[in-house]
Amino acid sequence: MSLRRSGRQRQRAIHPAAATFITRASPPYEMLDEEQLVVIEQHADRILEEIGMEIRGDADAIRLWRAAGAQIDGETRVRVPVGLARAIVRRSTPNEFVQHARNPARSVTIGGRATVFAPAYGPPFVSDAEGGRRYGTLEDFRNFVKLAYLSPWLHHSGGTVCEPTDVPVNTRHLDMVCAHMSLSDKPFMGSVTTAARAADSIEMCRILFGSEFIDGHCVILGNVNVNSPLVLDGEASRVIRTYAAANQAPVCVPFILGGAMGPVTTAGGLAQCFAEAMFCVALAQLERAGSPVILGNFLSSISLRSGAPTFGTPEPALAYFAIGQLARRLGVPLRCGGNLCASKLPDAQAACESANSLWPAFLAGANFILHSAGWLEGGLVMSYEKFVMDAEQCGAFHVIGRGMPLDENGFALDAFREVGPGSHFLGCAHTLRNYETAFFDFELSDNNSFEQWSEEGAHDIVWRAHRKWKAMLAAYQAPPLDPAVREALEAFIATRKAALADVSH
Amino acid sequence: MSLRRSGRQRQRAIHPAAATFITRASPPYEMLDEEQLVVIEQHADRILEEIGMEIRGDADAIRLWRAAGAQIDGETRVRVPVGLARAIVRRSTPNEFVQHARNPARSVTIGGRATVFAPAYGPPFVSDAEGGRRYGTLEDFRNFVKLAYLSPWLHHSGGTVCEPTDVPVNTRHLDMVCAHMSLSDKPFMGSVTTAARAADSIEMCRILFGSEFIDGHCVILGNVNVNSPLVLDGEASRVIRTYAAANQAPVCVPFILGGAMGPVTTAGGLAQCFAEAMFCVALAQLERAGSPVILGNFLSSISLRSGAPTFGTPEPALAYFAIGQLARRLGVPLRCGGNLCASKLPDAQAACESANSLWPAFLAGANFILHSAGWLEGGLVMSYEKFVMDAEQCGAFHVIGRGMPLDENGFALDAFREVGPGSHFLGCAHTLRNYETAFFDFELSDNNSFEQWSEEGAHDIVWRAHRKWKAMLAAYQAPPLDPAVREALEAFIATRKAALADVSH
Repeated sequence: MSLRRSGRQRQRAIHPAAATFITRASPPYEMLDEEQLVVIEQHADRILEEIGMEIRGDADAIRLWRAAGAQIDGETRVRVPVGLARAIVRRSTPNEFVQHARNPARSVTIGGRATVFAPAYGPPFVSDAEGGRRYGTLEDFRNFVKLAYLSPWLHHSGGTVCEPTDVPVNTRHLDMVCAHMSLSDKPFMGSVTTAARAADSIEMCRILFGSEFIDGHCVILGNVNVNSPLVLDGEASRVIRTYAAANQAPVCVPFILGGAMGPVTTAGGLAQCFAEAMFCVALAQLERAGSPVILGNFLSSISLRSGAPTFGTPEPALAYFAIGQLARRLGVPLRCGGNLCASKLPDAQAACESANSLWPAFLAGANFILHSAGWLEGGLVMSYEKFVMDAEQCGAFHVIGRGMPLDENGFALDAFREVGPGSHFLGCAHTLRNYETAFFDFELSDNNSFEQWSEEGAHDIVWRAHRKWKAMLAAYQAPPLDPAVREALEAFIATRKAALADVSH
Repeated sequence: MSLRRSGRQRQRAIHPAAATFITRASPPYEMLDEEQLVVIEQHADRILEEIGMEIRGDADAIRLWRAAGAQIDGETRVRVPVGLARAIVRRSTPNEFVQHARNPARSVTIGGRATVFAPAYGPPFVSDAEGGRRYGTLEDFRNFVKLAYLSPWLHHSGGTVCEPTDVPVNTRHLDMVCAHMSLSDKPFMGSVTTAARAADSIEMCRILFGSEFIDGHCVILGNVNVNSPLVLDGEASRVIRTYAAANQAPVCVPFILGGAMGPVTTAGGLAQCFAEAMFCVALAQLERAGSPVILGNFLSSISLRSGAPTFGTPEPALAYFAIGQLARRLGVPLRCGGNLCASKLPDAQAACESANSLWPAFLAGANFILHSAGWLEGGLVMSYEKFVMDAEQCGAFHVIGRGMPLDENGFALDAFREVGPGSHFLGCAHTLRNYETAFFDFELSDNNSFEQWSEEGAHDIVWRAHRKWKAMLAAYQAPPLDPAVREALEAFIATRKAALADVSH
């Protein structure tokens, strides 16, 4: 029997209905037991009380912590009594929330059993198989927003999908947020480089969604890094408070390369990460109780040969599993990193490293998986080919997330009765009824015979990925946007650009 | 601070002590709940009772099943009453056993919390980056035995690491077993192509280990495929019984590509696989109660575009998690496939597919992971480069298996006290005390800067893997073997070869 069918049917097989976000049918992986989790929490608490966190340059944040019961040493050191950060977080942080998209069909749930995939964030460079490695431009930025919009497996438009280095630093955020708003209708992230730019991002949301709507609904995330170890600089602190005050969701991310910004042992890095993240989540709640927030982490290691950052190593995988459990106990949505890698090419090194991040992130129960697509070279490069390759790997997790249907059709007893021993299932009624949706189809994979593959040019997956993203961009059509809204956005951007002299920082 | 140290220290960092086998500190992933597992078991039972299994051409096996209480229809159809197969298995199958190696320090535990990695099995072709794809030879076979012996991350020498197509089919097994026995001191697998060849393999073990020893100890495995759906051919059945009768361990492996040898739905393929495997494990116990045996599975899907086998898809991953739970409930050691892939090259397709098999196999709690290294092109090709790349991925699971030490050193409170907020951990006492063993070091990964990597030739991982396996083979030294034993083995082989006319089947 040939399983080849008409183009329409084939298309359905290649792209079975992709979910707006994944709702996991199966539980996450529980690596540690209760006793072990308590010990980690105790160490996080000890770090916050004995060493404390510094907030450098945000007196309002210090005031909030003092009022909440922390001890302030000098002007910057915040020592948080054991249990206080957890109590603040637990009192008011939503376990899950909806991030609304301008197209309501694209709104995502973040938290609980939901998982959302978002593209890589922050690379100054881009690369593709034809043009090589180069600085990212606004055109590249817009391309990646388009590709994320077109991918059925990515739920989110992300934030700084690459740095648009050809436009001025101090107004770049306006161009980036505008691209997310106009070229896609998926949810997105705003600027975090200064509190004023965060405020601009939120102001643009007021134009897009309406002021009243956004005070009651989350429509934008801001990804804020902690200056690990144990420092929250004042700008980052103000950015967290700016998002929280507007009832928007900061993602609080300790950035720890073990051996540099944290200890070389995994338990220590984990306790530190959890302490720092809990501290920031608590600050968001002190700013506005009940506001949405995501507990982030960025834990990796360094090469013992060169000191370079490494990705896809087993130690962060163990930390992912643990922090998933800790976040659930705390009752806060969790961010992990997805397809991270150190490789300079989208080769097998990149793929192994990426899978060694994505599998643990997903099974840890991560709710918001940033860096799900495109990341190369420790985050320095956004790769066009890796973007579409990674997105397809995210696609497979849609199937993992759905779990295994254990119904009458799933068990196929009718097929066994029809086929019996020693025959085959290719033409049986159950197969004909199910084959179009039975298996996830990796479009970029070549499963043909060696002979056919050789005749077709003996290409590796990068070649197919290159053709894929080019075809996607060629077929791109923007989702409709109310012209009045577009005009208002453009007017806002023009006003802000006029007010801000071009500077490069 | 520079983390570069002397050669000796660097070597220790690259190869931290590799375990003889992995004893997992963390529990496996429990995807399904009790109720779901019971439903799968019920469907497996229904398949065995309502449809039954055929044993074609082994009257002794039929007699064993009749005596045990099965209903025999005609001369070949064995209908097993609900619960009978499970009862037979549970009555006497060891939950774990030791497979002894000729070097006692290499003996492995199979079952319980242990995991053993073994190379790919069965490819007729081999390939390397220089010589391309070609039929495997005895020299290739011997090379892969050497590479598995030299890899700190593979615990087992495997079986048919490639088909040595340049030696006669009917005596090939003697050359293969001899290579495992003489070029390595790790545990290995014997022939399964006929019962007589299985007997030869066991006879050679009597020479190597002593007859008395092997009657009381497992020293060889035999990997036996079921002719799915629901047929055990007489030769396979006799091979299972030959190993079991000698108190050696058959690995019973339903071979199911969903849509061909099983239904396209995962639950159905899983129930079938479990039914077939349980049937074979029970047969081994009927032959010799208490003999060691491994419950295997080979579940994959086919491409809906071409009908070709696919690997690394999410459906088999779900099945792995489920069969891990089923095997534990049954109390039988589990075999899964490791680094499976369909790609023709060791590219990112191969790496993703492989990781998508290895992660679920390991987290499912698989005890014996065959095809852990070298597998390309759906098992048609054993690749030199992929072999060393895969082995390193297995290395990372040694760390995952050890779990996260939650002791005083792990939590590193002294480091936080020494470093404090805003500084770095590069030179602190805790780092100096721990950095040599802190992180798993992927020797084949390039983590250097783009500039350095470019200067060094901008190579991908395949290039590094090519150099690696060549260097390993160049440095190979055979483990010592008692000359009297070697002579006795050679004499046995000469006798058997003289008795067997060369034939090609």
